Amino acid sequence: MTTHVLAIAGGVGGAKLALGLTRVLAPDQLTIAVNTGDDETFHGLHVSPDLDTVMYTLAGMSNPETGWGIAGETFRALGALQRLGANTWFRLGDLDLATHIRRTQLLRDGLTLSQATRELTSALGIRHPIVPMSDDVLRTVAVTDDGELAFQEYFVHRHCEPRIAGIRFEGAATARPSPGLWAALASATAIVYCPSNPLVSIGPVLALAGVRDAIAAFAGPKIAVSPIVGGQAVKGPAAKMMAELGEEVSCVGVARRYAGVCDAIFIDTVDAANAGAIEGMGMRAYVTDTVMHTDDDKEALARQIVGIVEAWDE
Amino acid sequence: MTTHVLAIAGGVGGAKLALGLTRVLAPDQLTIAVNTGDDETFHGLHVSPDLDTVMYTLAGMSNPETGWGIAGETFRALGALQRLGANTWFRLGDLDLATHIRRTQLLRDGLTLSQATRELTSALGIRHPIVPMSDDVLRTVAVTDDGELAFQEYFVHRHCEPRIAGIRFEGAATARPSPGLWAALASATAIVYCPSNPLVSIGPVLALAGVRDAIAAFAGPKIAVSPIVGGQAVKGPAAKMMAELGEEVSCVGVARRYAGVCDAIFIDTVDAANAGAIEGMGMRAYVTDTVMHTDDDKEALARQIVGIVEAWDE
Repeated sequence: MTTHVLAIAGGVGGAKLALGLTRVLAPDQLTIAVNTGDDETFHGLHVSPDLDTVMYTLAGMSNPETGWGIAGETFRALGALQRLGANTWFRLGDLDLATHIRRTQLLRDGLTLSQATRELTSALGIRHPIVPMSDDVLRTVAVTDDGELAFQEYFVHRHCEPRIAGIRFEGAATARPSPGLWAALASATAIVYCPSNPLVSIGPVLALAGVRDAIAAFAGPKIAVSPIVGGQAVKGPAAKMMAELGEEVSCVGVARRYAGVCDAIFIDTVDAANAGAIEGMGMRAYVTDTVMHTDDDKEALARQIVGIVEAWDE
Repeated sequence: MTTHVLAIAGGVGGAKLALGLTRVLAPDQLTIAVNTGDDETFHGLHVSPDLDTVMYTLAGMSNPETGWGIAGETFRALGALQRLGANTWFRLGDLDLATHIRRTQLLRDGLTLSQATRELTSALGIRHPIVPMSDDVLRTVAVTDDGELAFQEYFVHRHCEPRIAGIRFEGAATARPSPGLWAALASATAIVYCPSNPLVSIGPVLALAGVRDAIAAFAGPKIAVSPIVGGQAVKGPAAKMMAELGEEVSCVGVARRYAGVCDAIFIDTVDAANAGAIEGMGMRAYVTDTVMHTDDDKEALARQIVGIVEAWDE
């Protein structure tokens, strides 16, 4: 059976492993399904932060310092928008704006988000399929001690400062997986959870109607990469959020999050001592260097994962 | 009676005289009604070229070399849009894009074009009222030997190369004047046709439901400034269009265009010999320097016009 990996990804960490996987697998061997729970409308434009991070990364356009945004970005339009009275706490660059303008136009023209994403990725020369998790609206809401906040409001505007009491996925009851995600759930030979935030990057995908059940029933290996290394998130607020929700901030906490929809978890060498606890939960634990600095790191981790996938036997 | 001038303007030439008038008249003595027949949707964004030219000019932001656009403009987003497969023959700059993004958002939020224009001009610190000619859709269509072309398609994309056989104002039967234009038609003491293209800048305003009749019945002086000087348009395609329509390309041809809705016309000193022909049509002719290079030129012409207005007696 030809290997076909369904990689489920959020933003920066997800994009890194997704890039690695594109170096190991052919375009018809990989589907990258990306969280859209963070999508937001700014200035009337549809912004898909995680889709864009994956797209810019695979197109070789991403800002190497931040992992998101476009290298060499400028913010002239944003300055002018601010002068015109617009709220500009979400920093949209001039190059990035073009993506949102184009996507919004395509959506208004009647394309689905999947179709619009295909247009954009194809124009950027990306050969591996990137699909949104859904063409419907599912929005991640942070339930905090300062009230309910739309995810970008919490994450970007409030710098994750309010204490989290819960996470809610608005629209989850009716939002269906996109055709690309659904097809991959049916035809893939393995599922990989990229090292993205389990709560707000992978969580929304699992919350889509029918997805958790489909993954639970999935025959092939389901392998996660822990985004928590040495008790800290490699990037982003995952550790703070898990702590505020009373979860263990470790790769074991991550494994608990994935219980029932995961067979194995890649943990970092610094967390080797946790392998036993994970295996005690009925999952395999693979210990390796999981922090990806260079493109070679990304490819090396992807190659190990694909190796496990191809050697998998129940 | 306090002077209140209703200035009807198109793009660059109109903006010049409008600026001059703002130096002579207080904000409550002037209404600048601007052609929106050229408005177009690009990338899903509502672009109002003439409104923007007047707005940028009055805000001191305009590009002094072109008369339109913003000084120091860059085109990074446009380059990215082109890469994404968008049609980019209409050159939207990064700073300019902010205007279109903001306007489009305000319109989608339910504001009228008049209200959106007030938001934009107020944010830019413009104190004199700039109003769109209409909040409804009237679109100028060039009927050419190469078929019917939307105005920007004809003007910008095709560089006015197709031969004009006529001009059509789509929606004119139902498009009403904006509240600001209508109020000024009722309360102004004078009407000034700025030196804009009589066919496609002033023509659309006159084509709005009820406007030509209201102006014909208007009690105060109606004064035009000829945009044709020495048989040529100061800027733009007015001369070529008039010639192709079989009209005399001179200030006399302009006067004929305004017959019935105009009492007097300012013509350039190089056209002094035409004064008699214009007076023979029952209009007064004022001979002066009408080509405005500097802001002082603009103010000087405005001051002469206001002087005539204030000394007017039937």
